[in-house]
Parts: sequence; structure tokens; C-alpha cells
Amino acid sequence: MKLLVLNGPNLNMLGRREPGVYGQETLESLEQELMNAAAEKGIQMDVFQSNVEGELINKLHETGADGVIMNPGALTHYSYSLRDAVAAISVPVVEVHISNVHAREPFRAVSVTAPVCTGQISGFGFDSYHTAVDYFVRRFSHETS
Amino acid sequence: MKLLVLNGPNLNMLGRREPGVYGQETLESLEQELMNAAAEKGIQMDVFQSNVEGELINKLHETGADGVIMNPGALTHYSYSLRDAVAAISVPVVEVHISNVHAREPFRAVSVTAPVCTGQISGFGFDSYHTAVDYFVRRFSHETS
Amino acid sequence: MKLLVLNGPNLNMLGRREPGVYGQETLESLEQELMNAAAEKGIQMDVFQSNVEGELINKLHETGADGVIMNPGALTHYSYSLRDAVAAISVPVVEVHISNVHAREPFRAVSVTAPVCTGQISGFGFDSYHTAVDYFVRRFSHETS
Amino acid sequence: MKLLVLNGPNLNMLGRREPGVYGQETLESLEQELMNAAAEKGIQMDVFQSNVEGELINKLHETGADGVIMNPGALTHYSYSLRDAVAAISVPVVEVHISNVHAREPFRAVSVTAPVCTGQISGFGFDSYHTAVDYFVRRFSHETS
Amino acid sequence: MKLLVLNGPNLNMLGRREPGVYGQETLESLEQELMNAAAEKGIQMDVFQSNVEGELINKLHETGADGVIMNPGALTHYSYSLRDAVAAISVPVVEVHISNVHAREPFRAVSVTAPVCTGQISGFGFDSYHTAVDYFVRRFSHETS
Amino acid sequence: MKLLVLNGPNLNMLGRREPGVYGQETLESLEQELMNAAAEKGIQMDVFQSNVEGELINKLHETGADGVIMNPGALTHYSYSLRDAVAAISVPVVEVHISNVHAREPFRAVSVTAPVCTGQISGFGFDSYHTAVDYFVRRFSHETS
Amino acid sequence: MKLLVLNGPNLNMLGRREPGVYGQETLESLEQELMNAAAEKGIQMDVFQSNVEGELINKLHETGADGVIMNPGALTHYSYSLRDAVAAISVPVVEVHISNVHAREPFRAVSVTAPVCTGQISGFGFDSYHTAVDYFVRRFSHETS
Amino acid sequence: MKLLVLNGPNLNMLGRREPGVYGQETLESLEQELMNAAAEKGIQMDVFQSNVEGELINKLHETGADGVIMNPGALTHYSYSLRDAVAAISVPVVEVHISNVHAREPFRAVSVTAPVCTGQISGFGFDSYHTAVDYFVRRFSHETS
Amino acid sequence: MKLLVLNGPNLNMLGRREPGVYGQETLESLEQELMNAAAEKGIQMDVFQSNVEGELINKLHETGADGVIMNPGALTHYSYSLRDAVAAISVPVVEVHISNVHAREPFRAVSVTAPVCTGQISGFGFDSYHTAVDYFVRRFSHETS
Amino acid sequence: MKLLVLNGPNLNMLGRREPGVYGQETLESLEQELMNAAAEKGIQMDVFQSNVEGELINKLHETGADGVIMNPGALTHYSYSLRDAVAAISVPVVEVHISNVHAREPFRAVSVTAPVCTGQISGFGFDSYHTAVDYFVRRFSHETS
Amino acid sequence: MKLLVLNGPNLNMLGRREPGVYGQETLESLEQELMNAAAEKGIQMDVFQSNVEGELINKLHETGADGVIMNPGALTHYSYSLRDAVAAISVPVVEVHISNVHAREPFRAVSVTAPVCTGQISGFGFDSYHTAVDYFVRRFSHETS
Amino acid sequence: MKLLVLNGPNLNMLGRREPGVYGQETLESLEQELMNAAAEKGIQMDVFQSNVEGELINKLHETGADGVIMNPGALTHYSYSLRDAVAAISVPVVEVHISNVHAREPFRAVSVTAPVCTGQISGFGFDSYHTAVDYFVRRFSHETS
Repeated sequence: MKLLVLNGPNLNMLGRREPGVYGQETLESLEQELMNAAAEKGIQMDVFQSNVEGELINKLHETGADGVIMNPGALTHYSYSLRDAVAAISVPVVEVHISNVHAREPFRAVSVTAPVCTGQISGFGFDSYHTAVDYFVRRFSHETS
Repeated sequence: MKLLVLNGPNLNMLGRREPGVYGQETLESLEQELMNAAAEKGIQMDVFQSNVEGELINKLHETGADGVIMNPGALTHYSYSLRDAVAAISVPVVEVHISNVHAREPFRAVSVTAPVCTGQISGFGFDSYHTAVDYFVRRFSHETS
Repeated sequence: MKLLVLNGPNLNMLGRREPGVYGQETLESLEQELMNAAAEKGIQMDVFQSNVEGELINKLHETGADGVIMNPGALTHYSYSLRDAVAAISVPVVEVHISNVHAREPFRAVSVTAPVCTGQISGFGFDSYHTAVDYFVRRFSHETS
Repeated sequence: MKLLVLNGPNLNMLGRREPGVYGQETLESLEQELMNAAAEKGIQMDVFQSNVEGELINKLHETGADGVIMNPGALTHYSYSLRDAVAAISVPVVEVHISNVHAREPFRAVSVTAPVCTGQISGFGFDSYHTAVDYFVRRFSHETS
Repeated sequence: MKLLVLNGPNLNMLGRREPGVYGQETLESLEQELMNAAAEKGIQMDVFQSNVEGELINKLHETGADGVIMNPGALTHYSYSLRDAVAAISVPVVEVHISNVHAREPFRAVSVTAPVCTGQISGFGFDSYHTAVDYFVRRFSHETS
Repeated sequence: MKLLVLNGPNLNMLGRREPGVYGQETLESLEQELMNAAAEKGIQMDVFQSNVEGELINKLHETGADGVIMNPGALTHYSYSLRDAVAAISVPVVEVHISNVHAREPFRAVSVTAPVCTGQISGFGFDSYHTAVDYFVRRFSHETS
Repeated sequence: MKLLVLNGPNLNMLGRREPGVYGQETLESLEQELMNAAAEKGIQMDVFQSNVEGELINKLHETGADGVIMNPGALTHYSYSLRDAVAAISVPVVEVHISNVHAREPFRAVSVTAPVCTGQISGFGFDSYHTAVDYFVRRFSHETS
Repeated sequence: MKLLVLNGPNLNMLGRREPGVYGQETLESLEQELMNAAAEKGIQMDVFQSNVEGELINKLHETGADGVIMNPGALTHYSYSLRDAVAAISVPVVEVHISNVHAREPFRAVSVTAPVCTGQISGFGFDSYHTAVDYFVRRFSHETS
Repeated sequence: MKLLVLNGPNLNMLGRREPGVYGQETLESLEQELMNAAAEKGIQMDVFQSNVEGELINKLHETGADGVIMNPGALTHYSYSLRDAVAAISVPVVEVHISNVHAREPFRAVSVTAPVCTGQISGFGFDSYHTAVDYFVRRFSHETS
Repeated sequence: MKLLVLNGPNLNMLGRREPGVYGQETLESLEQELMNAAAEKGIQMDVFQSNVEGELINKLHETGADGVIMNPGALTHYSYSLRDAVAAISVPVVEVHISNVHAREPFRAVSVTAPVCTGQISGFGFDSYHTAVDYFVRRFSHETS
Repeated sequence: MKLLVLNGPNLNMLGRREPGVYGQETLESLEQELMNAAAEKGIQMDVFQSNVEGELINKLHETGADGVIMNPGALTHYSYSLRDAVAAISVPVVEVHISNVHAREPFRAVSVTAPVCTGQISGFGFDSYHTAVDYFVRRFSHETS
Repeated sequence: MKLLVLNGPNLNMLGRREPGVYGQETLESLEQELMNAAAEKGIQMDVFQSNVEGELINKLHETGADGVIMNPGALTHYSYSLRDAVAAISVPVVEVHISNVHAREPFRAVSVTAPVCTGQISGFGFDSYHTAVDYFVRRFSHETS
């Protein structure tokens, strides 16, 4: 099994950006943590971050992964292009958010990408990503059992 | 660690209700599955379902659990009373949904309870509950480490 | 053929409540009238009223009737839980209202339950229930013919 | 007793138009069915269909019927002129719809004519008209009893 | 004179729930305080709290009080059923809120029950209830003078 | 000078329709009154009423009048076609209403035709038409002076 | 008969303000014109202009006129206080506007004062005032005839 | 203790204005009643009414009272300036309304001033003011006890 | 191949109506131009214009054409009846507009008929019709190839 | 060059009002600071503050300044009268705000006056005024160069 | 004559993406088809696709074409930047869509780019592009004739 | 002191794009003007323009400036990603606009980026940038004094 972790705009600022909201660890430590956890479970993990909407779309089009864990950052709230990119591929995509999007500014409660994803996980800090990995582990074990 | 799994209106109809949306397994099998998984991890698990909003509120007030996994059913979309019950207790509550609430009728995308929960997981079938359990395992391992 | 007549909040106040809007006869006389009319047509009729949303949901889940005539009272306008209960059963449900819901406060023109019912009858006083019975008689005569 | 059955735009296409929504019988068979049923009950029945809003208004102004069963077709959703025509006459008007208007496109749930009608019946196929006839039979039997 | 003090969902958590918003005294102390104050003024006072909407409706239907002081909790914002229960009885009802509902989340500024109450008092902590008692004392002294 | 008085749907029911709102005189008496008043002032006056939107449009296209006094009835609130007909001719059109459209149902406060008329007069009963005539008298006296 | 012509904020700038919209004559010439016309018809006419909402309200409270011609200027669109002042007096008030309020910015189409006035005249330049005078002449001739 | 009773636009018309809504007593009798009641309780009371928004603001800025009872009249619904004046002073302000603002036109249910007041009392006629006085008596007795 | 060109309200005023928006050529010249172009391509072309909504609906019901080019004029923005007429027939309908409906008043950007048409072409003057013809030529050449 | 600094409601409370939002300096010090700075640059500066909307309008009408720096306070959000006053004069007006109006309550992000001003400066404390002065210095140097 | 065909996000997935909506041919075949058709007509054709909004803007700025056929993909619904790019150049731009944007999710019916384009063509599959080419051929033949 | 001037989409078209709105000078001349002015004041100035949202975000993340003057172009109205980039850095950002955004299309009055900026300056042409520089000069002189 191979997973892609796709992070959108400003997630490269993790640890340096609004630590009260997003915590104090960096993107690098998140990615390392996830790759270590994946390795333990025999999962291959690819990581990618970009601040450019079109590069995220390109990455989705080209991914050979069996599942995608995507945090679109603020693109969540307006990027119908990213939405169409998710709809254009047959790979399951799980949308994750570090903070609880329902507990912040009203615009953050609206996701234009979630309707075409498999599901959404928000509010658990870095654990949002980890539980998404757990989900894929379960999913693939169902499929192969 | 002790968890409460709280299911709201119509979840007793699982397996018998709209199987295209909610799958074919029953509430009883879900609860059994969760309790088995919990037992393996040394977690105590209490389960409760009611179709009466006030009984769900009573259960939240009285719970001695360390965490709650709550599927409020359709109360999600209008029960400010349930919202206040979550806000009234100090126990962390994770909101879960079997189906992807963002991919159905527009009213289902609005959660009045999520803003006072820790986070929300939706779209993964019964795995929504399992990944919530996984989250609590991670959370408590952070806290105790 | 067996029918269930399900009345929601405040319909126990019929005759005592706002007679200008709802008329002067009581729930008891309505139920008696309907049961008499049903008996004449060889229909079995069960009647139930509750002010508790969850008890109405329970009744719907458990009914063995071939058709339900439901006046959800003011739950009509917000109870997505009742809506899901109707959707969860395979029995046809006809929504009835004593007053013309389109001719009163704007909130009464919105029904969150009607989209999952077979149809809606409103504005004919107690005759709303009687014409619903007439409908079921016709429907079942079609089916058996 | 004399009734007028008034059908608006596109109802002349019944049986030929979207049979999945409106069934396979034609307007002629509907009108014949209703006239037969009326004859059995000693009711005189006049039928009229037009695709021109103003002709429907003219018919309402001139009717000598004791009651009108009106299916305004899509005029339901915007014809304030038809609404004023109903309000301008003293004859009771029952609005009927073949399909369940609450279960289709959002614009169909709004009726600008219903607030000035006696009531509304929707969702029962041709039986919507028949139950409206039943209602008028009941109404006139109350009045004359 | 006899008054009923009716408290809705989560008010049993007073003192234990969000003390920054609702203060630190309990429902029991509030009820005791009000009964003492009432006794001094020769008023009989009945108190009732429930987390179940339908039980609050039942209580309103059955009350023999001359006036009701009602804090519907979060039901204020959506319970059209409770609204109809108030409209269904001839007893004057005063709606009270502990916190200033206009100074919190936008949904709290909307009351669906207030339009059928005599009036509304909000923002004065427990004194909201006391001034409601004062109002009834004045009202009944007007009526009897 | 030649004026056209154009009346839309249901104005043929004047005197017979909702006399509390529109008064007790008929369209015929209104038209007669206006023609008499016009004659006194040396104005030629043409009158036309129809319940068919398209016939009103035809009349506007063909009119040879120097000014039009138009009461579009309920078409005021939705007939963008009538609006375009007014915009399509170079003759000044004054919109009149018998009742005060701002003091009735909210939908009546919106005029889709007024933006392309010269102005609007509402609320003065039949005097709305008379003051429109007065306006044209003034206007043409300006132009010719 | 005595009339009051009440002009609100910025109408003192007539002739100096946006002549493309409001014409080139001044308030003084308008008032003089109206008083001359009134004198001819044996009407007493009082004129008043203020840029202060409260002074307009005071003037309305104190007027001894038989009718008021009021151009509230931009207060039309938000001054519920002026609305209540009109409602508080028993004198008929006609709202007038120089320009066609329906043909300008959207906010100008909304009048919060018109619902409590007798009627509204807009779009005829200074003739809006003159036709309002004409209306009062007609009205009082009806009343005295 | 010293209280200021501040009345906004049109409250000088009490007794003369819409007695069906506001009762038949005048502002003078209200003020006298309140001053008498205050005197009995050893409270100094200042009264002020103006129809000019800016004068109400000035009065708030300059008041030396320990509490303000303010009925902003229709300014309640749009005067953000009055709102800022309340926020600019450290004196507690209680907003009162004679009628039940929730039971009238929709615009009256919105208060732009209430969010910065201590609380709001509406619907009790002149007793709205009296219960506000009662509240201040209670408040100051708490503070000094 | 046979095409119907259907023009709605006010299109008979082409050339005479708002030439800045719609150009200076007449409907007759447009129809002639289209018929000439059609003849060259061996297409039969029927043309029809009416200002009466119901006559356009009748024409659609009765057409024997293989394709319809329809400019509904302002009916585009509110005629759900015309929409249902398009849905009621199996012939493909292309909606055309002379002006760019997205660049004018906001109401013109909304088409209630387009969702049931094959597609929409707007903004190219008379060329909107010509490119619609081109489309049908292509379509039928695909189908027959 | 001559500038007018016009301050609206509650700006006389600067330094005494919500210092967390508006800072601790008074209006007097602001005005003094601005006049000193102006004097250095050879600019004449007139200052005016009022809590009365109409007095601000009067001041704008009468000003002989070459430019106006206006902080309308909360009138910004509803005073269409002030807007019309700005539009009525030919002097350029710059709207300034001390706080960042986009970062506070939603109603503060809407300015009804800005559309007719030259521009808007907000969020820089007293420096909002100073940069407005800088702007006028630049503007007049362009014009005279 | 030289044309640019500009395709936005996800159009590189044509043939591989949601074939039920977009058909089974690829972008390459579309571009080849268009270039062949252009060559036949003596038109030079440049093609460009990007998933990056800014690159599409750059291409528009730099194009030397006489006309642009642009399918902005999902950017249609939110990219005001792309809109401004179209407005910034003097070349005519025709917006095309493969599917009927009016017949899908509501957000797709809104185009923020269309108001500054010459016109819009949607719903005809690849023929949307071909008819756009046809339009430009007609346009340039008008201009040169 | 070091400042960054960041210009978003289409600002490279200054002088070539809609000169009626944006003036006739180019971006190069603006940047040169600003750098000259900065040099005079001893300020270092970095300039950057891109049409790619992600590159603007990158630039903000990496800037070592003490202050940023940002004109996001049309990204102002939808780029929550750019908003988060501003929030992610500790450098003060001033939003500037050449035209008065409040006086154009409604969508331009909404800024999603302004709430996290220090303030906003709009409407002064190139002087919007210059006054922003003036602001920073004042700000830093405060901080260092």
C-alpha cells in the first residue's frame, strides 16, 4: 500500500505560524512522524507540500498512490479546481484539518472539496493525519480480507 | 481509560434503514465490534442509543467516561440543546458520522454540535467510530507520556 | 389493511388550543371519528399521540401498519430526526395538517419531513385526515386490483 | 354541486411528458376518470386546461362552480396573477399536484398560490385529484347537514 | 397567586456548566432562592426542570399556575413545538435568560418562543428570574386593583 | 395629447374583488371617470385591460399614445417581459397601484417594472390614476411651454 | 385645508447637488412654486426642511396640517424613527421622491417609511410634489362632498 | 444610587400614539410614576427624552448615574452610534421596550444596541421600566452586601 | 433536418428596441437571414415569435422539428412553465441570447430554462443564432456519420 | 490649502472610550496634533465634531475647505444621509477609521459612505488621519505642478 | 486570423476524468481536431493548457491572437483574477464549457469571468469549441466585409 | 527599515489595462517612483509582482522586510490562502488598492485579506502606495522614539 500526504498553502509554516491554533511542531517533523509510523505498518508514504494550487492539482493527477491524505489549507474554502482534481482521479482522498474548522471563522466551516472526498477528519492536531492513516489501514485490510 | 459511544435518533435502525447510505450491519454488531476492539486495547466501553434528545443530554451529563464518541444522527443539524450539553461537560467529545455529510442534502453539511466538540470524523462507515477510538488511544497516550 | 394515525406535539390540545385556527373538537373526537370511518371500510386503525419527538420516532420504527397518517405538529418545521425516521421505514407516510400551513407564519410553509413522505395534505381541518384515509383506500384498491 | 377541474401549463402533455415523474396516463383519461367518478356521486364536473396564464384567470373569474380543483402546473411557483385571481373569487379552491413538490427541485417547494387556496394536496398521482373531489363531497355534506 | 418556574435543557448543570457564562450557583440554590422570595410575598411557586422537550410541553399543558417563568435553554432557538405549547394555553408566560442572548453567538439572538410569550427578560443572571417574579407581582396587583 | 390606460390581470374584477383592499367601484366606472376627466382637459384617452401578459405587451408595442398609465396588477412583481416591453418603446409610462404596495405582503413591495418607468404612484385608490393624468398634463404643459 | 411640505436631509442642496439626478432648481424655488400653486387653490401651505432626523420628527408631532407631503431624503431607507413618527400621528402623509427610486442604487428601492404612509409618488421631479398636492385636493373634495 | 431613564424618538407621543400597542398613559405619567417609585426606595432618578439621536448620545456621555434604563425607540434597530455610546461608558445600561418586540414586524426583533447593554426587558408595558428599576435595586444590594 | 427558431416576448421589436443593446436589424431580417443560411445547408427552417408565454409552450408541444433554437426573451428569468415545456418534449433545444446576459442586470444572469436545454449561447448578436445552427449541423452530422 | 477634519458620533470620547480599541489619547490631543502638523506644512485646518448626524451634514454643506478628512464613526454603517451629503458637494472627502474596520464585528466592514468618497484609510490609529493629510498634500502638489 | 485556445485546470484529464460528464476523448485529440479544422479555414491556432491560474493569466497577457477561446474549468466560478486578466486585454474572449453548467451543481451556474467576455457557449461537448471557432470566423468576416 | 512592495495578479498590466480605472503609468514607473521616494527617506525597498497566488505566498513567507505594502489585486476577494499567509508572519502588512474598491462592482467591496492586515488604504491611485510608505515611516518613528 502506498499513501500520498498532500499539504496545501501555508502548511510549510507549521510551527512558525499561529502556534496557538496549529501547535509548535513543524511540517518536517509531521512528515517524518507520519513516514515513521507508515514504515512500521509496511506502508510506503510520499509527502508533498506546495503553496501553488496548480501544483497540488498536478500532484493529484500524477499520483500512483492507493490513497491520499490531503490538507488543502485555506484552498478548502474556495478551490473548486482542487475539488475537480479530486473528482478526476479514482484514488480515495481523505480531507484532514489540524484545527476544528467548525470552531473558527464561519468561512472555515465550508469545504468545497469535502463533497468529493471519501470523508473528512478535523480538529485533532497532527493526530488528524494519523487517524487518516489508521483509516486507510482498516480500509485496505477490509478490501484484502 | 473509559469511553462512551453515544448514538442518537434512528441509529437503532442501522442495517434496516437505507442500506445504500448506511450499510447493512446493525447497531448491535457495531457496538459489539467496538467493544471487542476496545477490550483488546484495555479500554472500557459504554454504549448508549436513544431516539429522545433529552435522554442523550442526560447521558452526557452523567457520564463518567474519559471521552465520548457521539453520532447525534439528525440532531446534528438543529439540536442546540445537545450542543450546550457537550459544552457543559469537561469530557472531550468526538463527533462521528457514518456517511459523508458533505456529499448529501445541503442541510447535512451544517453541524451545530461540532463547534463545541474536539473534532469531527465523517464518511468512513463504521470505521468512523473505529478511527475515533484510535484517536482517543493516541490522545491518552500523549497525555500519559 | 391497517393504518396508524400519528399525532405530534400539542395535538392533544385540540379543541382547547387556538380554536380559531384548529377548530373546537378534541383529539379524542378526531380519533373516534377516524376509527369509526375506518371500521366502516374494514380498515384497522391504530392511533398514537405524543409530545416527545423520540416517542414518535419509536412508534414509527415499530409500527406494523400498511400506511401512516402523520401530523407532526410543529416538528414539521425542524425535526430532521423525524424525517430520517420516515425514510428509515418502508411504510408509506402521508403528512397532514389541519390548517393551511401556507397561509400562516412563514416558518410554517417549510416542511422538513414532507420530502420523504408520499405526499402532503393541508388546510382541510379534520377532513385532512379523512381524505388521507380515502387516499389509502384508493391506493390499496389499486394495488390489489 | 358543481366542480371545476382547472389544469395549467403542460398538463396537456400528461402521459407524453416525463412519465417517470407524472405517470403514463393522459389528461383525457384523467378528465374522463374524474367525470365518471363525479357522475356517480351526483356531482357536475367542468374541466378546462390551458397553457396561457390569462385564460386560466379568465376561467376562474367566470366559473359558476361551487368548488375548484386547480393544478397550476409550474405557474404555482411564480404566478402572483393567478394567486390574485383565486383571492378575487369567493369559490373555494383546492390546489393539487401529481408529484410530491417537496421532493423535487427546491423551486417546486414554494407555492405562491397556496396561501389563498383552501388547502393543498400533493404527491398522490391522479389520486391527488380524486382526494380533492372526496374533500369537496365531505365539505358540502358538512354544509348541508 | 401561583407561579411555575420552568427550566429547559442543561439548566440542571447550573454551577457546574460554563461558570464564566452562567455563574457558580446551582439550579437547586436558584429554585430555593425563588421559592423563599415567593413565600415572602405570599406566592405559591412550583418548579420544574427537564432536558426533554416533550416533558416541558406536558408541564405547560397541565399547569394550573397563574403565570409561568420559562427559561427554555437552547430550545429557545428552534423549538416551534414549545412555542405552540405556550400559544395553546391561556396562562401568561415570561421568557427569561440568565446571560445576555444578544451578546453571544448569533443563533442565540433569535427566539422562536418569545413571539407568543408576554415578554422577555435576559442578561441579569439569576436576577432575570427575580425580576420576572416582580413583574407578576405588579401584574396581579394591577389586575386585582 | 393622447393617453393609454393599461390595466393588467384581475383589474376587471374591481368592485367584485376584495373590496376591503381595492374599493367598491368597478373597472368600467374607473375607465368612465378617467375618460370624462380627460375629455374635460382636451385629452384623448384609450383604455385597455387584459389578463394575458402577452396582450398587454402587444398593446404597449402598438400604442400611438403620448403617455401610458399602467397598472400591471400582480405582473408588477415578476414580469420581466412587461418590463422589457416598456423599455422597448419611447413613450413615457407611469406605473400606478390602487393600494399601497408597501403596506401589504412583502412580495408586493418589489416592482420589476418600475425601474424602466418614468415613475410610480401607489396607495391612493382610483386617485392614483387621476394624479397620473394630472402628471401628464403638467409634463406636456412643460414641454409645450 | 392646510398642508405641510416636509423635506429631509440634503434637500436644501437642490439645484446645487447632482443636477443630473435632481434638476437645477433650488429648494427655495420649489417651495415658492408650491406655495403659489396652493394659494391659487385656497390651500394654506407650511414648508419645513431639516437635515436633523429628530427635528423632522418634532415637526410631524406638532403639525396642525390636514395632510403632509414628505420627502425624507435618504432617511427613507433606514429611519424607523421617522416611520414611527408618521404612525404616531393621525394626519395622512404622502411620501414623495424627485427621482425614480427604483431606477438607482438597490438600497434606494427600499422605503421603511412608505408602509405607514398613505401612498408614495416617485420619479416626476418637482411634479412629484405637485401631484401630491393634486391628490390632497381630490381627497379633501371627496371627503367634503 | 442614581438612575437615568432615557427615552428615544416618539416616546413623547405615549398615550397619543397607537394606544393599541403602547397603552393610553403619557410619558409624563410614566416619568412621574417612576420617580415616585424611586423616591420610595431612596433612589435619585433623572429622566430625559429626545427625538434626536445625537442628544441621546450626549446625555449618555455626560450622565453621572449609576445605571441607565434606556428605551431607544426605533433607534434600537439601526443606531450603531447609540450602541457605541453605550459601549463608551462604564455605566450599566438596561434596554427596555414597552411592547413585545418579538411579536411585531420582523425588523423590531433585531436590536443593534442590546449586545452592549447588560440585558433587555421587553413586553410588559410600563412595567418593563419598573422591573428594570427592581433589577438595579437588586444589583446594587448585591454589590453593597 | 428541420429546425424551429422560437422567439419570445419583445423580440418582434428588434431593430426598434434599445438598438444599443440589441442592434439595428429587425426580426424579419434575422429570420430571413437564418432561412437563407439554412436553405444553403439543406435545412428546413420554421420560424415563430410570440409575446404570449402559452403560445410559445403550444408551439414547443406541437413542433415536428429535429431541433429548436429558442430565445425566450425575458421569460428566461422566470418562466418555469416554459422550462417544463422544454422538459416535456424529446427534441433538443438550444437557448440563445443576443446580448451577453452575464454583463447586464443581475436578474439576467439567471436562466430557469437553461438547465433543461442542451446548452446555451449568449452574447454574439445575431451570430448567437447562426452558431446554434452550426451546432445542429455538427450534431446531426455526428449522428448520421 | 484648507482642510476640514470632521469627526462623528462618540469620537469626543476618544481616550475615555474602549482604549483597547481606540487608544488612550483624547480627541483634543488628536486635533491639536493634526493642526500642528498642518501648520508646519502651511495648511489651514478646521476641526469639527458632533454626535448629531444633521450637524455633520450641515458642516459638509457649508465647508469652504479644499478637502475633508471624515471619520463618520458608526454612522459609516447606515447613514445614507451622510453619504448623500458627501455626494452633494464637490470637495474631495477621505474617509478614515482609527481601528481596522475589517477586523471587528461584521457590520463594521460595510461602509455606506465610502462609495462616494475619494478613498478610505482604516486601521492605523491616529496615523489614519495623518496619512490622509499626507495624501492631500500629495494631491494638491500634483494639481499645482 | 490567429486564435488561442486556452484550457484551465483539470482539462488535461479529459477522457480520463468523469467520462459520463466530459466524454471519452482526450485534450490532445480535442486540440488536434481544432487545429485541423482551423487549418482548413486558414486560421492559425495556438493551444495552451495549465492547472496554474497565474500561468493562464500570463498567457492571456502575452497572447498575440485575434481572439481567444477560453475554458477556465472550475476557475470560472471564483477567479476574479482571471476575470481581470480578460478585462485587461483588448482581444475578444469567448468562454466555453463542455457540459451544460446550468444543469449541474448550483455553484457551476455562476461565472465570474463571463461578464467581461464577449459571450459564453456551454453544453455542447467538444462542439462548444467548434462553434466558438465558427463564431470567430463569422465575426472576422463581418469586420473585413 | 526595509519595506516590501508586493503586487498581485494583473498589476503588471498597469498603464496597459483599463486606464480609465487604473491610470496610465506602468508598474515599472510605480516601482521606480516608490524606490526613489524610499531612498530619499533612507528606506530599503524590495519590489515583487506575480500573477501566481502561490508565489506571492512564498514571497511573504520569506520576506525579511520590516513592513509589507501589498496590493493583492483581485485575490483580495477570494484568496483565503493569501490571508493565512499574512496571518502566518509577524511582519505588519498594509493592504492598498489603486481604485476605490467601494465604488465599483459589489464583489470588490469585500476583502478577505484585510481582516488580518494592519489596515487598508484604497482609492488614491499610486498615492495609495505612497501614503502606505508614509504610514510606515510614522510607525517606525513612533517605535524608535
